[in-house]
Amino acid sequence: MRKKISIGIIGYGTVGSNTAAVLQKKNRFFADRTGIDFHIKKICDVNWDNKRDWMPPVSMRTNDYNDIINDPEINIVVELIGKFHPAYEIIKKSLRQGKAVVTANKFLLSKKLTELLTLADTSGSYLGFEASVAGAIPVIKMLRESFIGNRINSVIGILNGTTNYILSSMTEKHQTFSDALKSAQSLGYAESEPSLDISGKDSAQKLVIISTYAFQCGILDRDFLIEGIERIEPQDIDFARELGYKIKLLAIGKRLDDTVFLKVHPALIPVNHMLSDVESVYNAVYFEGDLFGKTLIYGEGAGGKAATSAVIADIMEIGRKLYLGSYLSEQFIINPHVKFQSSDELKTRYYLRFTAIDRHGVLASIANILGKNKISIASVIQKEENPEHAVPIVMLTHAAIEKNLQKAVSTIDKLSCIRHPTQIIRIEG
Amino acid sequence: MRKKISIGIIGYGTVGSNTAAVLQKKNRFFADRTGIDFHIKKICDVNWDNKRDWMPPVSMRTNDYNDIINDPEINIVVELIGKFHPAYEIIKKSLRQGKAVVTANKFLLSKKLTELLTLADTSGSYLGFEASVAGAIPVIKMLRESFIGNRINSVIGILNGTTNYILSSMTEKHQTFSDALKSAQSLGYAESEPSLDISGKDSAQKLVIISTYAFQCGILDRDFLIEGIERIEPQDIDFARELGYKIKLLAIGKRLDDTVFLKVHPALIPVNHMLSDVESVYNAVYFEGDLFGKTLIYGEGAGGKAATSAVIADIMEIGRKLYLGSYLSEQFIINPHVKFQSSDELKTRYYLRFTAIDRHGVLASIANILGKNKISIASVIQKEENPEHAVPIVMLTHAAIEKNLQKAVSTIDKLSCIRHPTQIIRIEG
Repeated sequence: MRKKISIGIIGYGTVGSNTAAVLQKKNRFFADRTGIDFHIKKICDVNWDNKRDWMPPVSMRTNDYNDIINDPEINIVVELIGKFHPAYEIIKKSLRQGKAVVTANKFLLSKKLTELLTLADTSGSYLGFEASVAGAIPVIKMLRESFIGNRINSVIGILNGTTNYILSSMTEKHQTFSDALKSAQSLGYAESEPSLDISGKDSAQKLVIISTYAFQCGILDRDFLIEGIERIEPQDIDFARELGYKIKLLAIGKRLDDTVFLKVHPALIPVNHMLSDVESVYNAVYFEGDLFGKTLIYGEGAGGKAATSAVIADIMEIGRKLYLGSYLSEQFIINPHVKFQSSDELKTRYYLRFTAIDRHGVLASIANILGKNKISIASVIQKEENPEHAVPIVMLTHAAIEKNLQKAVSTIDKLSCIRHPTQIIRIEG
Repeated sequence: MRKKISIGIIGYGTVGSNTAAVLQKKNRFFADRTGIDFHIKKICDVNWDNKRDWMPPVSMRTNDYNDIINDPEINIVVELIGKFHPAYEIIKKSLRQGKAVVTANKFLLSKKLTELLTLADTSGSYLGFEASVAGAIPVIKMLRESFIGNRINSVIGILNGTTNYILSSMTEKHQTFSDALKSAQSLGYAESEPSLDISGKDSAQKLVIISTYAFQCGILDRDFLIEGIERIEPQDIDFARELGYKIKLLAIGKRLDDTVFLKVHPALIPVNHMLSDVESVYNAVYFEGDLFGKTLIYGEGAGGKAATSAVIADIMEIGRKLYLGSYLSEQFIINPHVKFQSSDELKTRYYLRFTAIDRHGVLASIANILGKNKISIASVIQKEENPEHAVPIVMLTHAAIEKNLQKAVSTIDKLSCIRHPTQIIRIEG
């Protein structure tokens, strides 16, 4: 006997319309694989003027999401409108009524994931959110299920396609940041208002969601180090290449015993690290765990089809669980002992680019200040010699404590021979 | 209320003892995450003389697997003895009695996967076999669940750590095959009897398991092209590098409409393909699907801990399903329309290394024979000039049909100027 499951979709943009089209087109394929007829009952959008590949019949359309969340026949609510309101209310009401929810809303989840998972648990419902992080890459499922036997010690992600595209273009085409941004915008890889991506905030939201599972920590709304890519210059990319590194925007979460730290910033990674091969709009996540060792998963992190693949996987999973008659309690746990390490105390290697007048003793002054702050130098590049103009001096340091580094650089930047604020980029891997 | 699930482990080797040790050590961790007390009731091995990290109390040990499969209290049988008999009987009897089975037995599954999945389905039981392919990398779960909405068009895997280690050593240390094999053996990365790995058969078994899910085809026991790495010479690796390629042993499955082909062979892959960065004993699988696009997953494919991670994930999954009171029917489907393409008809690019006396007209004779067989040349390297000795002539072809290529090379190898059988390596990616 084939079971029928009714779906309501709220938000008929790229992912919503792709999801509807795939559910229609592959209905038989899914039924064969799951024994379930996945049936779209209603689709809500505020306006229906945008032409999509598949346009639902008028009888299926609504402008009021209450038509979906209050329909007792609808089992699964797919929330694809994004932002905070009314997505938050839609998801809460749906879960409270025992409906399963599938969402790609990283912004909302980065603020409310623990609350919504707890609500799903107490309501006997289910929250699917694979599409909120890294598109089609099943990061959440891997953490929730495949790596459940592991203690996760490290997660390093390239989680934002826009910034990765820009850094790739700067590297391959020797473009400036603003030129690379313009070309990303013209190709549709960056929004006209790109600050969420470029500032690192989008990556940070995804890191919060991943970390909740990876480290069992309720880090929602907690401040951590977030830096964007705006200040990366072509010369930094060139120096990095010369030193055997690429520059990528990384989202990093690590744990030592019960201490966790999170940060998002551009970083130099060695060219032999697999993350350095992640180019263009692709995403990747690298994990370390006590049993599986090292794993990397790479794929399309954005775009309608990739996100649709994740939404469909969640819908099928919910269908299968509904078929069994109940959801399994998530047994979602927050470890109350998790401590957060302040970014001031983090120990990292650094790339420093000083812009100094090429004068006798400059290198000695810089090295002296670094030494006083317990920062030791691993390598130096000083190429041009031009006593008239400021020239770049690039140093890679050994591991140093963030607050010492910041103090040293602020002292160095006050030297009369220093002509611009020093470029600081962390090194990872 | 915490539920208790009883486990019997058959085979107390590296993975078996690691699994037992992890289940003991992390019992509380798993209970917190799943609400289930995973309890080892009995462990079977033919002898108990080998010292393992964790040795079960004598009361837990048995030499007779019937003590496990006939124990009504045992919910999950973990089969880790490998080979065909009695693993096949153990799994069948266990499934028939409604016990869930977890196995890492790739040899058995490559012959009997569809039969055992069907038996699990009809018995209302469950077969977990994530550990049979690519160690800790959740290839099976990705195909079964994360990519369920997709039509998979291509799977390319580096599925054997031993051969990848040997090829990596040959590439990095300029070793011959036999020297690299010896060093792999001395490090424990190759068996003293390594033929299963080196011949490509181990990769082929894993490819069969993956393809059953990826392409819904019952390809068990079907012959397909399987070539090993024994005949790769250091000069092939050097020529490949010069041309921008690395040589890897690949397991390849592709589908076009309802036509599927499978093959395992060493191949040249471009250095900018992510699979070319998979070095040493690591495994990776690259997938293409109609929604997710391109995905690669990389990780530890072998070793006790990686396989244990996968075994534990299967045990937790079964525990969670048991908690719900029943397993979901796998709805495992075989597409009866799948056709297999003979390797004779496959179209591929080729690397050819001729060993010829450097005589006027040799290149023309070779090119002439290739042309007559509809094979066009993309590039040629002919370096040394020595009219006294045989020299290598390397050609990369455009895509050509396997049977034409074989015919052309067999004609060429009969030329008087050719001194050794021509080296043929396929190009992928």
